[in-house]
Amino acid sequence: MNDEFYMGLALSEAWKFQILTYPNPAVGCLILDENGQILSCKAHEMAGYLHAEPTAILFALCKKSEKFKDDFIKAYNAKFSSNIKEGEFGLLEPKFSYEFILNNHSNLLKNAKAYVTLEPCSHHGKTPPCANLLKELGFSEVIIGSHDENKIASGGGNLLQSAGVRVKFGVLKVRCDKLLEPFLAYQNGGFSFLKIAISKNGVASGGIITNEFSRTHVHKLRSVIDTLVIGGNTVRTDRPRLDTRLIKNGKNPDVIIYSRSDKFDETIPLFSVPGRKVSVQKELNIKGLCMFEGAGEFLKLAKEGKLANVKWLLIYQSSDFKNGENLRLDLNLKPLFSGNFGDDGYTWYEILD
Amino acid sequence: MNDEFYMGLALSEAWKFQILTYPNPAVGCLILDENGQILSCKAHEMAGYLHAEPTAILFALCKKSEKFKDDFIKAYNAKFSSNIKEGEFGLLEPKFSYEFILNNHSNLLKNAKAYVTLEPCSHHGKTPPCANLLKELGFSEVIIGSHDENKIASGGGNLLQSAGVRVKFGVLKVRCDKLLEPFLAYQNGGFSFLKIAISKNGVASGGIITNEFSRTHVHKLRSVIDTLVIGGNTVRTDRPRLDTRLIKNGKNPDVIIYSRSDKFDETIPLFSVPGRKVSVQKELNIKGLCMFEGAGEFLKLAKEGKLANVKWLLIYQSSDFKNGENLRLDLNLKPLFSGNFGDDGYTWYEILD
Repeated sequence: MNDEFYMGLALSEAWKFQILTYPNPAVGCLILDENGQILSCKAHEMAGYLHAEPTAILFALCKKSEKFKDDFIKAYNAKFSSNIKEGEFGLLEPKFSYEFILNNHSNLLKNAKAYVTLEPCSHHGKTPPCANLLKELGFSEVIIGSHDENKIASGGGNLLQSAGVRVKFGVLKVRCDKLLEPFLAYQNGGFSFLKIAISKNGVASGGIITNEFSRTHVHKLRSVIDTLVIGGNTVRTDRPRLDTRLIKNGKNPDVIIYSRSDKFDETIPLFSVPGRKVSVQKELNIKGLCMFEGAGEFLKLAKEGKLANVKWLLIYQSSDFKNGENLRLDLNLKPLFSGNFGDDGYTWYEILD
Repeated sequence: MNDEFYMGLALSEAWKFQILTYPNPAVGCLILDENGQILSCKAHEMAGYLHAEPTAILFALCKKSEKFKDDFIKAYNAKFSSNIKEGEFGLLEPKFSYEFILNNHSNLLKNAKAYVTLEPCSHHGKTPPCANLLKELGFSEVIIGSHDENKIASGGGNLLQSAGVRVKFGVLKVRCDKLLEPFLAYQNGGFSFLKIAISKNGVASGGIITNEFSRTHVHKLRSVIDTLVIGGNTVRTDRPRLDTRLIKNGKNPDVIIYSRSDKFDETIPLFSVPGRKVSVQKELNIKGLCMFEGAGEFLKLAKEGKLANVKWLLIYQSSDFKNGENLRLDLNLKPLFSGNFGDDGYTWYEILD
């Protein structure tokens, strides 16, 4: 197994949280111990919580030492009056966890190796710098996919090298750079993508299509985006709610209905979701992170070049055949990543001009 | 990372060669060194060649020692006047390779761990027994998915345990058992499956659909099956060749045309493929390993229960959308395994009653 194999695992983990980390980049991290055993493969899951590197380090330390694990769980639960258990620490308060690692690692990861899809950060943001953590724990080598071009956060590679850590850049660079594109677009004003769901044989209509894992993922996406855009016809026909009921503590996104007429039956559920602004727009004026839902209206617009801001397409696809006409689209698409949610597949595409 | 993770990798590798190992079972093997580092993950690729365990062992030894690698390549090429290079030993003569491993392993895999989807064989067939090899090399633990129920080959677990090797049965057992089903069916008279190819949106017609990796895989399947069954209408419309030109030294399967009329234009390319028997049958009488090609005619028959012997469905799916009507089918399908050939996906389904 070579560097590309391990970076590939880190990449796959990171793609599971693509967009969900907004406004942070999606990042994955895999850790090998000093003998080359995989200790953990984790990703940054959500902004405000632990970055990919300390998450992977935390799991790695827990794998190395039962005592560390027990101590961490006890200390964390005492500090936050929480009740986390083993394997349940995806979303942890970053500062406390980071400090705990620094003070309790007992050199368990000395000479370990980290694979990170993005250059570890070197700045104090909501979380302290990851590069520093890798250095302090005595990692012998850090293998990096993409250079961090961000002026504030970059320099992690240099920091590590200056401390005597071997640093290798550019493993699966093209794929790691692609993972970062939505993040770079946020920073330049915004990112929009279109989400559709189809059956194995391409049917996009007629009730629920995908499984609960896929639908939960959609609700997570809704919870982090700034705006959900939906077509007027879809609103009238499907009478959707467009909320985040499948997840805990989800935030319901504001909705823009793209429609020439602003007449809608106000009993359509989406209008009465708490804490939501709904607006009707004839000409779309989109900022921030935006998900377009509904194939019917938007694929045609995309083909006509009227959705220039919509750069990516996310297709969920069930493993079942469905009776009905298939979705046709005439876009120039480039597949970026495919993964699975249970028996469903999902593919991120870039929409080429 | 736990046993299930490693067995999952071995399973994925084995599924790449599902059917291609006929009349042997598809088997995958992953090896960890004494410290838990992954050394190799390989599968049995074709009957008559090395089993999964010695293949994985060979790669593991080459990873551990440059000297072993050089010596093996030199000795193998001298013996067979061949020109294999590093990484090119998927299909090796089994006896020589097995003996070479036994005589030259230098205890490099002492205390290593093997994950095998099927209990290692204990009998001398075309290749000497794999269980013995694991024992002789000093593996400390062998983790096994499925029990071998074969009277001749079974007993590998016992052999290992008697020699003091830790043996753990049943990791991902359900999935490992499913991998074995075609093999068990061969042994009970035969196995038939239907292969179709569709675009991302379910279009099955109108020229080439899948990429070269998928089509090469189809040619490999054709090369190992006993019989290819195709519908008369498909023959008349598509005028196919149904050969194995995309692979080296492929064997062209005999063809049964399922048709009421036996009148065919003899200039249709499939009739002039060298070394092939073509027959036309009104009532299918199938033995051995048989692939049905062509969705149009067979899906309807399957629905009507007239293809009772066709147990599995293999769907290749491209990542592109295509204009055209989608394939509809009304079968009760259970997805068994999904993988990728480049940007294409493929899924094996079980056809439930």
